Amino acid sequence: MSERGRKRVAILGSTGSIGTQALQVIAAHPDRFDVVGLAAGRNVDLLREQVARFRPRIATTGSDGAEGLRRVALDSDPDIVLAATDGAVAFDAVLAAIEHGTNIAVANKELIVAAGEVMTAAARASGSRLLPVDSEHSALFQCLVGEDAAHVRALIITASGGPFRTATREEIEHATLERALAHPTWQMGTKNTIDSATLMNKGLEMIEASRLFGQPGERVLITIHPQSIAHGFVLFTDGSVKAQICAPDMRVPIGYALAYPQRLVLRQAQHDGTGAQPGTSAPCHPELVAGFDVSSILGGKPGAPELRYDFGRPDVDRFPCVRLAYEALARGGTAPAVLSAANEVAVRAFVEGKLRFGGIARAIEHALESAEHRDASLEAIRLADAQARAIASKFVEGF
Amino acid sequence: MSERGRKRVAILGSTGSIGTQALQVIAAHPDRFDVVGLAAGRNVDLLREQVARFRPRIATTGSDGAEGLRRVALDSDPDIVLAATDGAVAFDAVLAAIEHGTNIAVANKELIVAAGEVMTAAARASGSRLLPVDSEHSALFQCLVGEDAAHVRALIITASGGPFRTATREEIEHATLERALAHPTWQMGTKNTIDSATLMNKGLEMIEASRLFGQPGERVLITIHPQSIAHGFVLFTDGSVKAQICAPDMRVPIGYALAYPQRLVLRQAQHDGTGAQPGTSAPCHPELVAGFDVSSILGGKPGAPELRYDFGRPDVDRFPCVRLAYEALARGGTAPAVLSAANEVAVRAFVEGKLRFGGIARAIEHALESAEHRDASLEAIRLADAQARAIASKFVEGF
Repeated sequence: MSERGRKRVAILGSTGSIGTQALQVIAAHPDRFDVVGLAAGRNVDLLREQVARFRPRIATTGSDGAEGLRRVALDSDPDIVLAATDGAVAFDAVLAAIEHGTNIAVANKELIVAAGEVMTAAARASGSRLLPVDSEHSALFQCLVGEDAAHVRALIITASGGPFRTATREEIEHATLERALAHPTWQMGTKNTIDSATLMNKGLEMIEASRLFGQPGERVLITIHPQSIAHGFVLFTDGSVKAQICAPDMRVPIGYALAYPQRLVLRQAQHDGTGAQPGTSAPCHPELVAGFDVSSILGGKPGAPELRYDFGRPDVDRFPCVRLAYEALARGGTAPAVLSAANEVAVRAFVEGKLRFGGIARAIEHALESAEHRDASLEAIRLADAQARAIASKFVEGF
Repeated sequence: MSERGRKRVAILGSTGSIGTQALQVIAAHPDRFDVVGLAAGRNVDLLREQVARFRPRIATTGSDGAEGLRRVALDSDPDIVLAATDGAVAFDAVLAAIEHGTNIAVANKELIVAAGEVMTAAARASGSRLLPVDSEHSALFQCLVGEDAAHVRALIITASGGPFRTATREEIEHATLERALAHPTWQMGTKNTIDSATLMNKGLEMIEASRLFGQPGERVLITIHPQSIAHGFVLFTDGSVKAQICAPDMRVPIGYALAYPQRLVLRQAQHDGTGAQPGTSAPCHPELVAGFDVSSILGGKPGAPELRYDFGRPDVDRFPCVRLAYEALARGGTAPAVLSAANEVAVRAFVEGKLRFGGIARAIEHALESAEHRDASLEAIRLADAQARAIASKFVEGF
């Protein structure tokens, strides 16, 4: 903590989507947080604005390389590092912070998918806490607060189901880029949107959940929930299930990870300034509870249509990426890194028109079958990543 | 704890529905619990069987009066007392156990509705924990585990909506006993079923939630959820909501209260002996996770219809008992006791054909308006209870 009791935050990837939303949360709570370090990639103009506003001790750009990330993660002396870069660029910096005992707010899938064994082992050794930022893992984390891991029977993450939720296998095989990009709920980048159409995003998240919470793959389930408002469930040994539900606003899980074990006071963005009057509603169903419109989650105003949540199971025949993710997790070692890297190559090939939608899973499967299998270390993961990319690229070129 | 590390349990009301289900849970976990005291009412034959099976130190019947209940609650030296009698008969015994510092598993609505101020104040003073057994309050309790009460924005309990969920005001006013008893989800006694038709059950539970968790009435909401599978929600200051979901089997919340802070390993009753094979399903959606059929809560088997949960708000114009409960809670003191007692009289009058369904709320409102208002003490509550019954009876006779 800084001398005034505020938590010192360093952000790796401060100009990306998660980084900028984190800075919004921090800006709204100047009594809670100090920004001590900012690492950006190429968006130097935005970084300059952020530096002017938040006055970190250390700020670096992509041209400072891995050493820049390391300085922000370590030398800025943070209480918590928000790991929000893409890919493997920050692996060394984050591992160093974990080994130093610093808590990590994890907003980088690869960090836990590809390098999860390494990162979680280091965290256990140092006492560093890995706090998930992804909405699904934040949900699981919140449901597990105060609970004993020995009482967990299953972790369940929700999937919107993507644009092909109700499509046939044949339709999915030949799906166009345009249809694959029509995500029903979340606004995301192209890569994430395609991952959400293949359900590979859920496969990757399933692996993350397994790593973060120390549960084997057979205890991490996926449920299709088109409304995307419940994000995760924990099933306990006694038959109770706990769920976390939240509007799809990343600032909530970001704020939870940064403030943990506290919770911030956040207003709903979509209801700011609507002028709703808390005092005008009946005491038994106020529309607003302390500024929060509960009707968005728990049902409409009296007389309005009831809210509806649906749940179902993913069909691994239509969505083979889900099966591949379970297989990679079961294999362990470098297999999840191969899965993730081959997926990146295959998705790019699909976006560039070089591969059918149905070919994405086949390219990944081929890479998993062909790549050498090694135990996990950052070095082995880097090699596996490169090998998987080469194998998947060759597979794609074969078409 | 007993010398062998088992929790010592005393049950007030051992031959009732909750008492017998608690003994089923205890019988399934002989390594966890010792039954040290059993208090029954008039069902001496069943008590005799229970004594033969569980060998408590002390067993008493209704003919032993208040002193019998007190001996079971105190002299049997329990770690936890399950308060599962109806009405006010066990108030003194439970209060004595609370003052002694013994934890209470609360399965008696009146205890917290009528005497909640007294019981919770005594528990705060002695360090006794009041562990809810009701499914809605167990849900809230579970969602609050590991959380700070300062981060709670609202507690939300679910209501099935009862048989008149979609009925008009006029239909409700003149509803027959037969229709009022047609509860869509739970099998309950007549009194509880009528309470669930007027939604007074939710009014009473709202008061209990307010008392048990120290939140004012305006922070305790009710949501209509016809599937009755989610039992409670906690809305936090940061916009996150946690929910507890469970099949409608009272043994789950009973087991939770008795085992807390542990969780038992319970199998689903409805799936016992179905012969389902855990090994035959794909790893990503096993039908059974350690013997538990998650499809009952989180979606059908692949290809089966999706599960659906609905939520809406109660309409206080059609269900005025909800409004009366909020008013009684806001008034405090003896008002909740008046509400509960007048409701009992009015429900009995309706069942006996002496009052229209719509007259139930009017009888209660009349009692709340006419009864003297006093601060809460067990003595004042007893007087208020008697006065409310007299006023409500007179009101009923006026028809």
